[in-house]
Amino acid sequence: MIVVMKPGSSQPQVEHVINLVREMGCKDHVIVGTERTVVAVIGDDRHKDRSRFESVEGVEKVVPILAPYKMASVEMKKERTVVPLAKAGAIGGTKVGVIAGPCSVEDKVHLIEIAHAVKEAGAIGLRGGAFKPRTSPYAFQGLAEEGLKYLAEARDKTGLAIVTEVMSIEQIPACVEYADVLQIGARNMQNFNLLSKVGETSKPVLLKRGMSATLEEFLLAAEYIMARGNQNVMLCERGIRTFEEYVRNTLPLAIVPELHRRSHLPVVVDPSHGTGKAHLVADMCKAAVACGADGIILEVHNDPEHAMTDGAQSLNPKQFGEMMKAIKRIAQAVDREV
Amino acid sequence: MIVVMKPGSSQPQVEHVINLVREMGCKDHVIVGTERTVVAVIGDDRHKDRSRFESVEGVEKVVPILAPYKMASVEMKKERTVVPLAKAGAIGGTKVGVIAGPCSVEDKVHLIEIAHAVKEAGAIGLRGGAFKPRTSPYAFQGLAEEGLKYLAEARDKTGLAIVTEVMSIEQIPACVEYADVLQIGARNMQNFNLLSKVGETSKPVLLKRGMSATLEEFLLAAEYIMARGNQNVMLCERGIRTFEEYVRNTLPLAIVPELHRRSHLPVVVDPSHGTGKAHLVADMCKAAVACGADGIILEVHNDPEHAMTDGAQSLNPKQFGEMMKAIKRIAQAVDREV
Amino acid sequence: MIVVMKPGSSQPQVEHVINLVREMGCKDHVIVGTERTVVAVIGDDRHKDRSRFESVEGVEKVVPILAPYKMASVEMKKERTVVPLAKAGAIGGTKVGVIAGPCSVEDKVHLIEIAHAVKEAGAIGLRGGAFKPRTSPYAFQGLAEEGLKYLAEARDKTGLAIVTEVMSIEQIPACVEYADVLQIGARNMQNFNLLSKVGETSKPVLLKRGMSATLEEFLLAAEYIMARGNQNVMLCERGIRTFEEYVRNTLPLAIVPELHRRSHLPVVVDPSHGTGKAHLVADMCKAAVACGADGIILEVHNDPEHAMTDGAQSLNPKQFGEMMKAIKRIAQAVDREV
Amino acid sequence: MIVVMKPGSSQPQVEHVINLVREMGCKDHVIVGTERTVVAVIGDDRHKDRSRFESVEGVEKVVPILAPYKMASVEMKKERTVVPLAKAGAIGGTKVGVIAGPCSVEDKVHLIEIAHAVKEAGAIGLRGGAFKPRTSPYAFQGLAEEGLKYLAEARDKTGLAIVTEVMSIEQIPACVEYADVLQIGARNMQNFNLLSKVGETSKPVLLKRGMSATLEEFLLAAEYIMARGNQNVMLCERGIRTFEEYVRNTLPLAIVPELHRRSHLPVVVDPSHGTGKAHLVADMCKAAVACGADGIILEVHNDPEHAMTDGAQSLNPKQFGEMMKAIKRIAQAVDREV
Repeated sequence: MIVVMKPGSSQPQVEHVINLVREMGCKDHVIVGTERTVVAVIGDDRHKDRSRFESVEGVEKVVPILAPYKMASVEMKKERTVVPLAKAGAIGGTKVGVIAGPCSVEDKVHLIEIAHAVKEAGAIGLRGGAFKPRTSPYAFQGLAEEGLKYLAEARDKTGLAIVTEVMSIEQIPACVEYADVLQIGARNMQNFNLLSKVGETSKPVLLKRGMSATLEEFLLAAEYIMARGNQNVMLCERGIRTFEEYVRNTLPLAIVPELHRRSHLPVVVDPSHGTGKAHLVADMCKAAVACGADGIILEVHNDPEHAMTDGAQSLNPKQFGEMMKAIKRIAQAVDREV
Repeated sequence: MIVVMKPGSSQPQVEHVINLVREMGCKDHVIVGTERTVVAVIGDDRHKDRSRFESVEGVEKVVPILAPYKMASVEMKKERTVVPLAKAGAIGGTKVGVIAGPCSVEDKVHLIEIAHAVKEAGAIGLRGGAFKPRTSPYAFQGLAEEGLKYLAEARDKTGLAIVTEVMSIEQIPACVEYADVLQIGARNMQNFNLLSKVGETSKPVLLKRGMSATLEEFLLAAEYIMARGNQNVMLCERGIRTFEEYVRNTLPLAIVPELHRRSHLPVVVDPSHGTGKAHLVADMCKAAVACGADGIILEVHNDPEHAMTDGAQSLNPKQFGEMMKAIKRIAQAVDREV
Repeated sequence: MIVVMKPGSSQPQVEHVINLVREMGCKDHVIVGTERTVVAVIGDDRHKDRSRFESVEGVEKVVPILAPYKMASVEMKKERTVVPLAKAGAIGGTKVGVIAGPCSVEDKVHLIEIAHAVKEAGAIGLRGGAFKPRTSPYAFQGLAEEGLKYLAEARDKTGLAIVTEVMSIEQIPACVEYADVLQIGARNMQNFNLLSKVGETSKPVLLKRGMSATLEEFLLAAEYIMARGNQNVMLCERGIRTFEEYVRNTLPLAIVPELHRRSHLPVVVDPSHGTGKAHLVADMCKAAVACGADGIILEVHNDPEHAMTDGAQSLNPKQFGEMMKAIKRIAQAVDREV
Repeated sequence: MIVVMKPGSSQPQVEHVINLVREMGCKDHVIVGTERTVVAVIGDDRHKDRSRFESVEGVEKVVPILAPYKMASVEMKKERTVVPLAKAGAIGGTKVGVIAGPCSVEDKVHLIEIAHAVKEAGAIGLRGGAFKPRTSPYAFQGLAEEGLKYLAEARDKTGLAIVTEVMSIEQIPACVEYADVLQIGARNMQNFNLLSKVGETSKPVLLKRGMSATLEEFLLAAEYIMARGNQNVMLCERGIRTFEEYVRNTLPLAIVPELHRRSHLPVVVDPSHGTGKAHLVADMCKAAVACGADGIILEVHNDPEHAMTDGAQSLNPKQFGEMMKAIKRIAQAVDREV
């Protein structure tokens, strides 16, 4: 890090900073500029509380140099990570993997119908929530374990890999039993105890970005999982909260190439939550594939008008099929395949 | 809610909407305007998935009318809630209560020193984290149960009420045993399982607003706690994430009077996280009291330069004492007392 | 609009609202719901100050129904607008038009070199600032009229259409004389006097979205231009300001299909300002074409290291050429052409 | 600035950076850290395009050290600036000055009534728009010069200083003739030609922060005015655009002490635009005075229900009088006077 002193800071103030730097086991390097003195800190300071230097007298600000994540970074691992989705395929190679299904598991018949439809159109994974994080305590909270069983049955019938959200530590065993991929939702991206625990399982994890998480916080959340031994993490962009009002969330696709530049983990895009509007989903799927997404996860329902959750952003199977055809062409144009 | 049809929507489309409205047990009321037809929905639709109407053909948008929270609202309870802080005082009456202490519990001697200092200056609560939600898995994670014991000892010595964060369901029993108030951190504001579980305890809860939560989501998080039987909820504004870069978070104080207008729950402001900069904390404490905050929670450390966490935003005891004198004067100017 | 009354509002309060509605020449329609009374306003209220109803006693909130733009909307004009770029081509048809060039016009030799390079790679327009809106008064402010002359010379040599920013009313005549398209910069999107004046010229206008403008404000800015008679408006998304820190701006591509849904005007994307980072530009060009952009505008410099402005986000001619090849393939995949 | 090299950057790459640094007339200072090499640039680089270093091979990022504003900064002028408001008083001394009046000048009788009312309650300035920046071209655009005459007449009758917005260069002469303070609206904060021109007048300027301007951009806008010779600039916070939906804008009051720390210019707060809701205005006035605002500007209308603009955020004279009493008490509590 670089500690920038205030103009007119005194020699004892600079020396005090130097002492603090040495106390933390780093080396100091003082540069006297024309208007400011700065103290460069040499050594690994990434796990120290750098902010406290800001409370030292004579200090104007502190500028971090080293990114705080390690295992997720391309500096640690050059080859790109490919995450297997059970026997259904993988996310992270040349192929772009599509995971589709209803927001919530509502009943078995519907689920299996949807599963067949998305499989046929080319999906490799089936998404569906058994435990639902709902903004209101009065809203439908999901079918819980029963929902997981339906999902497992849908896998048996279609071969699709099952992706389902785990909201809380005590739900992990059941999700591990029935599902192939554990999803961490946006609202839990910084539920650090939950991250650590899924990091102790052997199931691949689809980690959704928090709706106001910085890129660095997102990679550090992945780091929590990886630090416990689970390297199969997929980073999923699902839109951020901004002032825009024609969408439920703003989908910032530039994060796809930026994550690829900084991390070896595969990147998945969720245009359903990323827009909140069914009529925008297909175009955002195309854009995501065009800029390099390794996977797409989206909501498909065979009767969106009666969906118990997220009806406004669900495609019906026909729309899904058309979208799949469209992204197959885009994938080819960027030398990939769906 | 109001369902707004597209210009040129057909009669069968309007009828289809009417049928869906009736299916959900509500009454419809169609208004044919000069440019749009709208279908007003009469009845309690607040727990239905209103968004799905947006996927219906011919529908342009859906406008909710009823706010989805109930127990937290002034419509349900006219008199303002006063939350007791053990024997130390209360938050929500004429008095403005101040809760102060270090970000993390670091060791016993320091903690007790700080506790005495803030008590002397007029605080009624002692804050301190034993379980720490840290952005990086490599950073200091707190002393856990040992930290809770130090906090309890500080209470015995000073009479201050203990406020500490509970990050995960399995930490609840220990926190309930040692602390007086359970804090839900900003990152867990939509950890719905955790909210429900603290709602089953009898301890008051300090609920921090998520850094990009809307006011409605904030009140619904309170509703999760209240729906399980715990009515002693304090709403804490701690700053939101915006594009501003001179602060760690932007502190939107207009939420204080707005929450008072919509809810009977007391409102606490956290200017430490709300700015992230020690030099801005005192002025924001003054502003918070001036606009009606029922309580202030902030970070005080007797050696911020060596604080293990949040050094940049901690006041030292001398600064805290001066701030307390300043807000006592402000409180009088708005007919309250600190 | 819909005027929502507070719970418990009185009959005289509702009647007072009704009187205000009638005063503005609209019809009222009262609906008594189970928890709220609402007054639906029938008639064209889009140019009234609807907000003032919020100051009326007993009113909780006001919900607008009609969008306030007209000439820019698809309801007014079904066929899509195609904006001619002098003899160089057009923006808005099947072809995706590319406009490229340096941020600032710096000197004639460089400019002509760049113009030849982008022309060869397939661009139809040359961008370049003669008048530069600079955040700091001490920074390079552009070559003014001399810069315009260089641009005109570059057009003579290459046949490219010239796109240049007009910052102020008094610059209009010179820009009209030398350029083919007048650009309104993001910082001037709500400089209403300037908008009106360019609306009185016969030159096509490239209107950039303000960095925190809503979609409605964006379309209303176009409306200012169109209301004065100039229908050749291109809507340009150039990124919005959010909390994201790995980019200079966040590029919200979902606005491309949403603008197409609401307006007949062509949509151009600027991935240079939309990311601020050269290494992200090509991928965002691909994504923009994939989701339906009618044009791309971007910064190309033959020596970015020495560019006087925006070096960090400029492609060099080699990178530009590769990007053009890439988007040609994407364009084909969505049945268009570059 | 500090140029941070990528891990593994080569010696020639570092040397290339050094050459570029020397080319711009600065000195270089290379520090080889454990994981990164950084090149510290010594000398005044604040008016160079620092971003272009980001396009140099081997460079990871560029960190600016010096703030780009000068004349507005406390480093240039220690004593605080006091801006005179004609004979009516001043903004920036011990007294907190209040400027009040309607959003738009609508007619003479109303204006003079309002002027008397706010004068009586303790205001020193009268605000009122003759030229109105309206989001829609179809909305009321102001009375123009006639409105200015009414304002001048109100000054003659009350002694209040006149504050009015100038939207465009050609309006400057008339505004200079009739008004005492020229207001630059939020939408024009980066209308650099307009800023320069008002910088050439001798009238004090009230500069509103753009709704997504950073603090640095705000101070640089002031710098544009000051660089032309006009030192009487007041910085006005009027709320920023965020995701919050219960307010029209989010009012970030921590900017008041932060501006005081960085600049000698007085700081004014506009809680009318800063909230957009009349019921929040008084509390935000109190908070603004409590945290050190030198002035308040707000909207007062004697018939908000019929206001042509901004009815929702205007106080009536009675509410204004009560607010004034309240802030007088707050001012005393911070050793100031209204």
